[in-house]
Amino acid sequence: MNTNLTTFADLYQFTMMYGYYKTGKMDEEVAFDLFFRKNPFHNGYTIAAGLETVIQYIQNLSFTDSDIDYLKSTGLFQDENFFDYLQNLSFTGDLYAMPEGTVVFPNEPLIKVRTRLFEAQFIETALLTQIGHQSLIATKANRMTRVANGKPILEFGARRAQGVESAVLGSRASIIGGCNSTSNVKAGKEYDLMISGTHAHSWIMSFDSELEAFQSYAEAFPDHLILLIDTFDTLKSGMPNAIKVFREVKKQHGELKTYGVRLDSGDLAYLSKKAREMLDEAGFQEAIIVASNDLDEYTIRELESQEAKIDAYGVGTKLITAYDQPALGCVYKLAAEKLNDKWIPKIKRSENPEKITNPGLKKVLRYIDEKNGEALVDLIMLEDEQIPNQPFEVFDPIHTWKRKKVKHCKWIELLQPIFIQGKLVYESPSINEIVENVQRNLSSFSKEHKRFSKPHIYHVDLSQNLWDMKMKLLAELD
Amino acid sequence: MNTNLTTFADLYQFTMMYGYYKTGKMDEEVAFDLFFRKNPFHNGYTIAAGLETVIQYIQNLSFTDSDIDYLKSTGLFQDENFFDYLQNLSFTGDLYAMPEGTVVFPNEPLIKVRTRLFEAQFIETALLTQIGHQSLIATKANRMTRVANGKPILEFGARRAQGVESAVLGSRASIIGGCNSTSNVKAGKEYDLMISGTHAHSWIMSFDSELEAFQSYAEAFPDHLILLIDTFDTLKSGMPNAIKVFREVKKQHGELKTYGVRLDSGDLAYLSKKAREMLDEAGFQEAIIVASNDLDEYTIRELESQEAKIDAYGVGTKLITAYDQPALGCVYKLAAEKLNDKWIPKIKRSENPEKITNPGLKKVLRYIDEKNGEALVDLIMLEDEQIPNQPFEVFDPIHTWKRKKVKHCKWIELLQPIFIQGKLVYESPSINEIVENVQRNLSSFSKEHKRFSKPHIYHVDLSQNLWDMKMKLLAELD
Repeated sequence: MNTNLTTFADLYQFTMMYGYYKTGKMDEEVAFDLFFRKNPFHNGYTIAAGLETVIQYIQNLSFTDSDIDYLKSTGLFQDENFFDYLQNLSFTGDLYAMPEGTVVFPNEPLIKVRTRLFEAQFIETALLTQIGHQSLIATKANRMTRVANGKPILEFGARRAQGVESAVLGSRASIIGGCNSTSNVKAGKEYDLMISGTHAHSWIMSFDSELEAFQSYAEAFPDHLILLIDTFDTLKSGMPNAIKVFREVKKQHGELKTYGVRLDSGDLAYLSKKAREMLDEAGFQEAIIVASNDLDEYTIRELESQEAKIDAYGVGTKLITAYDQPALGCVYKLAAEKLNDKWIPKIKRSENPEKITNPGLKKVLRYIDEKNGEALVDLIMLEDEQIPNQPFEVFDPIHTWKRKKVKHCKWIELLQPIFIQGKLVYESPSINEIVENVQRNLSSFSKEHKRFSKPHIYHVDLSQNLWDMKMKLLAELD
Repeated sequence: MNTNLTTFADLYQFTMMYGYYKTGKMDEEVAFDLFFRKNPFHNGYTIAAGLETVIQYIQNLSFTDSDIDYLKSTGLFQDENFFDYLQNLSFTGDLYAMPEGTVVFPNEPLIKVRTRLFEAQFIETALLTQIGHQSLIATKANRMTRVANGKPILEFGARRAQGVESAVLGSRASIIGGCNSTSNVKAGKEYDLMISGTHAHSWIMSFDSELEAFQSYAEAFPDHLILLIDTFDTLKSGMPNAIKVFREVKKQHGELKTYGVRLDSGDLAYLSKKAREMLDEAGFQEAIIVASNDLDEYTIRELESQEAKIDAYGVGTKLITAYDQPALGCVYKLAAEKLNDKWIPKIKRSENPEKITNPGLKKVLRYIDEKNGEALVDLIMLEDEQIPNQPFEVFDPIHTWKRKKVKHCKWIELLQPIFIQGKLVYESPSINEIVENVQRNLSSFSKEHKRFSKPHIYHVDLSQNLWDMKMKLLAELD
């Protein structure tokens, strides 16, 4: 997915660029924040993902001649010199971001952009689309893996995804979130993900009998033999035939490596228990049972609580589309503008208090208790603020009487430099490093914050300076 | 989005191909049907879309050396000769499809593939993903346009889509479904769609005042002047400032071309009525009012029933993600297999009667009453069956006592040849022709079938021959 995506922007980005060009504002330096306002799926946190494709997008930012011809053909832009500026567009500023796999909370900037208005405005659409989609899927995957008691989750939603790219990047995000493997070969190849898959019902149907189909599959894949057993009758036909084939392979090869059965319909709790009994009785204690069929985190949790004998879960539609909430709703808001070499903080007011933005150039610190390793609070501060000496007090930005003392904490700064003056200064981690980053991040949060439903709300506070600035700006607007 | 998508397949397509290669079945000729089982969104029908990208996919089907190297590196495929077959893979068979924009119903094949098993199995994933996604969005868009009383719907969901490609192809599908324009410039360029867009809140915020922001926008776009009026206060600030600027432009240019305001928050019914009054009083009867803010077909219908003074609707998240049902759930099932030059019909049984497939090579005829132009029934028949002489009786395939007489009807065959013996024989229509096809298709269906909720169920029946074959095969399975 390395294609040039430069024209991928809402038309209003172009009309605004033209407007900024016409009013001479295009070179003013500005700062934008990308954030979301609510964790998805009633989860207690969100897993940041999508930075890798954002980096690719920004590095490839460049209009082709055919793009320019197209824009000319719209007849919208009267002043032809505008196209010269477009032709020379590239990203020349600074971009800070939370690395992929960071546990992030509402209203925290996942990305901070600081560059001239012309560029900063233009990249909005692509950043929102990529970060929103991939963070959503990573978070959904993480919910599923969390309830599976360590059993592997296999992502195989490609056919139900909203298009090919959505499937490929969704696979990657699923792995980031904690899935074990994907069925998606393109994703496996492009992003170095573990792939898995065996056969479909059509395999069975294309042979004269289920037994013959199993035997033929075993001939091709004796060492990786997961048989789909529900084409005719799971317990009466599929299981006996599978056991027969396992015996044959064992006899022929002396041993069985990875082998087992997949259940894809019916009552998975009941069938898995019966299947386990039959496999154990036949001496196939190492055979694994994979279950699939429209699973989501709620069904997986139910199956686990009923002690279903399932060793791995295959998930499709519900994960790859984030079925119960298919959009995260990221926004990208102006935070500051540089005038006469001085940064002027900007605020967007709203009738909804939760939609009021945090002004100014900011950084985000996570304070982690040195004793128990638990994250205590995230503090959004002004970029040039001194890190406060401990102990100090933090307070809820809405209910300011809710106060908490920060002491004996180490802190980490969550926003990392990615581009500085247009130059990429960030070395992208491998997919395994990202997966480890998720685990490391999550290990700082208490069980209460990770609770499946109605989680304890993690504190994200504003520094006193930032809070004062915000209140002052709000007062001035009236 | 013309890239080579050949590796976009579930791993099990590869393992099955390898299995077919090992068992010598790879060259057996087979027929598969692609269909869905339920209309999305409780709608009475579905709009077929996605064929254009399927054609591109099939034409570009070819493994690169790097793909082959990757597949070798998995260690799954022991027999090296298999890779020679992969290297030579292309689509050599027949593919029939319902043209984009066709109104289609559950269990009707949208695509019928007839080729050797090796290829037919392999293309499953990509076909399902593309047809499923795009038909879903086209249908969602059609629902929205249907309740808007002819007012234009502007699609601007790019930033909330599940990735860039999902946004681009979703834009195209939205236009097929009946949207007027898209904000997505890449989609506009690639698929010749009408684009629209003006400015964001950040435009307003980057100026010292709302008035100055409006004036600057008017200088850049005097002929296309839709002002977003809710940044500070819609009626107290936005409207008076907009009217002031309309007056200035009229004075300066003598006339106003396309102009108006956009509401993006608050009570859209109330605000639109007040805005209309203020515009009319100021003499700007031609000013249009565009409304947006998380709209879907339910909210649009409510606004219309409350006689909101809205001239155009902007829709984002709810359309581009098909929010309330983000996957259509297409399936691809083996229908027949050729043995000794004879087609053997195949059936997939299931505990769920509605999941039992229709066997054999099929065609789909739509019977339209010649008098009133209304579609009476779709008849799924065997491919080599004679078209019956009228009058004849059709019957519900489940409740077979429900019978209906077909007389004085013309018929159309819904599946069109797209590839014959691997050669493209279909000329893709323009986007406008597809949009017209939707309208022509819909004009054959009664209001009851198009009802917004609880629509009358349209009859899709099986021919007597097909029904008999199905019953015989089911009996044989027991």
